[in-house]
Amino acid sequence: MRISELSDRSGVSVASIKYYLREGLLPEGARSSATQADYDERHERRLGVIRALLDSGVSIADARAVLAALDDPPASPHDLLGAAHAAVLPHVEGELDLAAAEALLARMGWTEGACDADVVAGVARALQNLDRAGFTVPDETMDVYLDAVERMATAELAGVPLGSPEDAVRYVVLGSVLVEPLLLSLRRVAEQIASGRRFDVSTDAADEASDEPLRRPT
Amino acid sequence: MRISELSDRSGVSVASIKYYLREGLLPEGARSSATQADYDERHERRLGVIRALLDSGVSIADARAVLAALDDPPASPHDLLGAAHAAVLPHVEGELDLAAAEALLARMGWTEGACDADVVAGVARALQNLDRAGFTVPDETMDVYLDAVERMATAELAGVPLGSPEDAVRYVVLGSVLVEPLLLSLRRVAEQIASGRRFDVSTDAADEASDEPLRRPT
Repeated sequence: MRISELSDRSGVSVASIKYYLREGLLPEGARSSATQADYDERHERRLGVIRALLDSGVSIADARAVLAALDDPPASPHDLLGAAHAAVLPHVEGELDLAAAEALLARMGWTEGACDADVVAGVARALQNLDRAGFTVPDETMDVYLDAVERMATAELAGVPLGSPEDAVRYVVLGSVLVEPLLLSLRRVAEQIASGRRFDVSTDAADEASDEPLRRPT
Repeated sequence: MRISELSDRSGVSVASIKYYLREGLLPEGARSSATQADYDERHERRLGVIRALLDSGVSIADARAVLAALDDPPASPHDLLGAAHAAVLPHVEGELDLAAAEALLARMGWTEGACDADVVAGVARALQNLDRAGFTVPDETMDVYLDAVERMATAELAGVPLGSPEDAVRYVVLGSVLVEPLLLSLRRVAEQIASGRRFDVSTDAADEASDEPLRRPT
């Protein structure tokens, strides 16, 4: 199909498609003449993934790395997960004290081998920022976080489809990266619900809203 | 103290401090002459919070909104949480279908009142991006996510300090915003650990690394 049809079918403007081509996110179509290229369903599917990544807040450079991991996956699904994580990990500047992060992970017995140093550095950076802001996560809450991420990861990994390598790759890369915004937004909902209960919002302002379902965004 | 001393004590460069002053993140010091201003410990503490927010990936504009919620908090801690969430929620463009998000939240009985529409829109957007990328979260995994965020939120809200309003404000705003990178990075660690178990990495590459503790970033 021509670029105009690809645009119609994918709902992505021709200008955006050309931008993704220039940025190396979308592979070139087969050249059909000096000025035209031919695209197929793989381009259409790829556009869906590109839009999902960019809309999830992944940068162009990080999206390129995620797509590279999809296109040329490491032989083992485990290394693939590392590649997906490496693609989206925030760049860490300056010195990091890893001791607090290592001590935290040791509480779960997570001290050896199968975990990339960059991922541990991410934990260290998050702890450092909390510390810098003068915020301490209470121990009981931290235990709940550790338990929660272990439950989530176990469920996620149990679900990796092993029948088709292509499916496994998509599941690991996209499941790790694209689920992050879902988890953060679900946590915000859960916090607001828990906050409403804790501060007994039903006694005041919420009464007037309680016979409506969720309010629509304005 | 003068700006140079504030810089020394906080470890933030004079140029950055001036930038935060211009951007309205840091309040002006008391003017002590035509060219000098006087800063105190509140400025120093505020710089710690600013750096933590920016280093956590919060934009200047979002940081300004988070700080405004800290400075001029709504009367109820519950509204405060909404203000903190609103400050960091991604801007949602285009049309959103809320039906899938509402159905998902209804599974937890989260259907009424005490939850801002923008937060639900965040869930809808995350689901839409997963869908666009052709990725489906298996039902069992989604149940684990929902259960996990409920456990986390319940623990977090149980810990809100009620003695001092200032402490409550800091806890709610910073606990919600600054803990997000911590959770994502802990999930990545847990995924790599679970992946190592699932794909039995111990049989190959991990053996050589297993007598070292966590590798340092390079």
